[in-house]
Amino acid sequence: MSKEITSRKQDYSQWYNDLVIKSGLADYSAVRGCMVIKPYGYALWENMRDQLDRMFKDTGHVNAYFPLFVPKSLFEAEEKNAEGFAKECAVVTHYRLKADENKKGKLIVDPEARLEEELVVRPTSEAIIWNTYKDWIQSYRDLPILINQWANVVRWEMRTRLFLRTAEFLWQEGHTAHETQEEAVEETVKMLNVYAEFAENYMALPVIKGVKSASERFAGAEDTYCIEALMQDGKALQAGTSHFLGQNFAKAFDVQFLNKENKKEYVWATSWGVSTRLIGALIMAHSDDDGLILPPKIAPVQVVIVPIYKGEESKPVIDAKANEIIKGLKTKGIRVKYDNNETTRPGWKFAEYEMQGVPLRLAIGLRDVENNVVELVRRDTKEKASVSITGIEAYCAGLLDAIQQNIFNRALLFRNENTRSADQWDDFIKLLDEQPGFISAHWDGTAETEEKIKEATKATIRCIPLDAKPEEGKCIFSGKPSKQRVLFARAY
Amino acid sequence: MSKEITSRKQDYSQWYNDLVIKSGLADYSAVRGCMVIKPYGYALWENMRDQLDRMFKDTGHVNAYFPLFVPKSLFEAEEKNAEGFAKECAVVTHYRLKADENKKGKLIVDPEARLEEELVVRPTSEAIIWNTYKDWIQSYRDLPILINQWANVVRWEMRTRLFLRTAEFLWQEGHTAHETQEEAVEETVKMLNVYAEFAENYMALPVIKGVKSASERFAGAEDTYCIEALMQDGKALQAGTSHFLGQNFAKAFDVQFLNKENKKEYVWATSWGVSTRLIGALIMAHSDDDGLILPPKIAPVQVVIVPIYKGEESKPVIDAKANEIIKGLKTKGIRVKYDNNETTRPGWKFAEYEMQGVPLRLAIGLRDVENNVVELVRRDTKEKASVSITGIEAYCAGLLDAIQQNIFNRALLFRNENTRSADQWDDFIKLLDEQPGFISAHWDGTAETEEKIKEATKATIRCIPLDAKPEEGKCIFSGKPSKQRVLFARAY
Repeated sequence: MSKEITSRKQDYSQWYNDLVIKSGLADYSAVRGCMVIKPYGYALWENMRDQLDRMFKDTGHVNAYFPLFVPKSLFEAEEKNAEGFAKECAVVTHYRLKADENKKGKLIVDPEARLEEELVVRPTSEAIIWNTYKDWIQSYRDLPILINQWANVVRWEMRTRLFLRTAEFLWQEGHTAHETQEEAVEETVKMLNVYAEFAENYMALPVIKGVKSASERFAGAEDTYCIEALMQDGKALQAGTSHFLGQNFAKAFDVQFLNKENKKEYVWATSWGVSTRLIGALIMAHSDDDGLILPPKIAPVQVVIVPIYKGEESKPVIDAKANEIIKGLKTKGIRVKYDNNETTRPGWKFAEYEMQGVPLRLAIGLRDVENNVVELVRRDTKEKASVSITGIEAYCAGLLDAIQQNIFNRALLFRNENTRSADQWDDFIKLLDEQPGFISAHWDGTAETEEKIKEATKATIRCIPLDAKPEEGKCIFSGKPSKQRVLFARAY
Repeated sequence: MSKEITSRKQDYSQWYNDLVIKSGLADYSAVRGCMVIKPYGYALWENMRDQLDRMFKDTGHVNAYFPLFVPKSLFEAEEKNAEGFAKECAVVTHYRLKADENKKGKLIVDPEARLEEELVVRPTSEAIIWNTYKDWIQSYRDLPILINQWANVVRWEMRTRLFLRTAEFLWQEGHTAHETQEEAVEETVKMLNVYAEFAENYMALPVIKGVKSASERFAGAEDTYCIEALMQDGKALQAGTSHFLGQNFAKAFDVQFLNKENKKEYVWATSWGVSTRLIGALIMAHSDDDGLILPPKIAPVQVVIVPIYKGEESKPVIDAKANEIIKGLKTKGIRVKYDNNETTRPGWKFAEYEMQGVPLRLAIGLRDVENNVVELVRRDTKEKASVSITGIEAYCAGLLDAIQQNIFNRALLFRNENTRSADQWDDFIKLLDEQPGFISAHWDGTAETEEKIKEATKATIRCIPLDAKPEEGKCIFSGKPSKQRVLFARAY
């Protein structure tokens, strides 16, 4: 094998880091907590972004772009939001460097170029956007506003992990404005459903839709809806959030509109976002000790073809047949790569594409051409088969669908097997340590209990599932009465 | 008319600002020098970006993403580059805000959260990227690297204009690494040609390809190639640049590779970029006193259909026919909008879509449905015609092509009419004041003369055209010998 990675059993966390680096998705950078998204990782992000963008546009949204910087006075306007992000934001204080008189060739911050008002590098854009919406909204005729933005944001996290938690990350943030509470709540839920559909149908990632407890809410929201996924180590990962913001930002920025009765009202708001963190979820949900396993629908390369040359005279014959296959695959819209690079050996390439998680690998030698077959290997199951070249494009298309489905089923099975109920505190603790996963348990609804459980176990309430049925019970920790179960887990 | 804008004659600069705001392309923001790109402007940018992205990928490039921040020590490594940008960069010095003890609800920069090393918000990414390439390049086998990045950058400009010059702007920056000087120069010219092709074939913007004089070069480049366009007020606008960076960045960041002879060599570099500034060029090259004129190939909406209702019973009849037309147009891949909003009148809509520069407007009333015709108006010429609905999709497709060509021809004619030769200093000055445009004139090749001409007239050397023929002559200013003409103009 050309590249070895730590196994999941040995060290799950190291396995993840090794995989991100060795598959060529991303790299560390010279900037604390910031990553470089390498071409392979960015191609994956482009596929995810483009699909989400289509889904946003299909639900009536348009894109726009707002400034990177938030003046401090705007940043602090919505107090809860400001409080939530103040502790981790990058602040621009100066607008010029100048030559250091004491060190030739070096620069220092020019003390005379101090900004009158500091600028916060956006950790999220509610403040700058609602300050803008104020100018755009006068009457109910100006509503709804359904805007999304693709952007970079910065949160000065102390402990960072590639994709999962980086100081700068790429994301999209939807910011909508509505006439009524009902319409805003409907939008919040609609976008949660878009995220769930994207996660399940494109990323092959089963998710639980739910609502956060008050203490896990987005700073400034009235309600935070989320999708939660389960990783292979039994930890949960929040994969997307959709917030009902009530009138909090409208009040903070005084955004009122004349309603149909000609009365002034504050506007209702939502915001919703997913980020490059999703790539972390994707990796941890599906991959194995040999590398990535990518869902065909978003894989940058869906099929790779490796020629097995034997002597110079075999090359034109194999190349010709390979090109025929490529042409056929492309007519089916399949993203195919032909790796006839002669500086590396087939065995090296097999390991490399396994590492990169390419869903299907075709190998073709001279004997294969004669027999009109190729050797085909699925990345998800590693099954190998000799397949007729006649009709190969339909066969591959079908197999890609099957792989997509299989990856999803596998993840769903894993989640089902690792979602357990607990009714006793001892069981709860035991499960967390011995069989980590989601734990469905009763909770008395208080922030105090939630905090105590977190302190004792590091487990948090991931969500109150939207489909949870009312059930009388007793809180797993306090024993106080509870009306429904919630989902606990340790989480990323 | 619903919205009036200043005429070009009255005040060209005000016309431009009015147009950007009233057509809904962009808006001012609360952040000094930063703009909000509104949905209509962003849709235009998306079309431009997507086409450029296809052209980059077709020429073998891949996308990636590098950090927003450049640590000061990396920023200053390439001295000329650092010197060129130090005067206008936003600097992050702190990573936390805290509650102001003296003012409830207000925040201050936490003095204890001062960064050990300041971070520059990227004004361009050569430094952070070449510091990364150092880790990626060991041998000639790692070359070439052909990476592009779509990103936001910040340059703290003192005088800003919407799209043309903003503190933050969106752009793409290509950063390539090569084995040989020859290959790097070839890449530089290749990308210049991609830009020229994009400007001419998609933006309908005729451009001159040329090389910058030494004093107009990108800071850190050995040669800067550019495309220059002429605006309707006779001022030039640099629409894109492609830089041959020599080994400057490789030396600054010590990026060496083992060549085929197993010897260490410094890597050769290029970088190239275009930005949202192109939108400013687009507006100023084509538009008129009634609004934008957008080239069909990149217009967010290519055809707008306005129903002329007369009584309730006319609505279903007109809507049905309009939907039939829309369906036909869509099969031709035409981007069409149906504006049947009843809160505004047809006349208001006509003016609105003129302002927005929608290339074709169709109006359809009850009589039209009976006669199987629509009223069709071209935005570029304002010609109006009654056109049969049978075959309307092919007719519109043809007309959109004709409009694209006509806008280009018009701009080309304008540029040709406003490109003049001058052989005497008096003529040069007179032309600049009375017939502004490109002036082709001899120059002695010295930075000194260039600077004096700039001081005396505000005109700069826009470029030394790539297709300029050798011609003996005397410098327009110094009278010293010159071997070819260069292009002068006042510029944005």
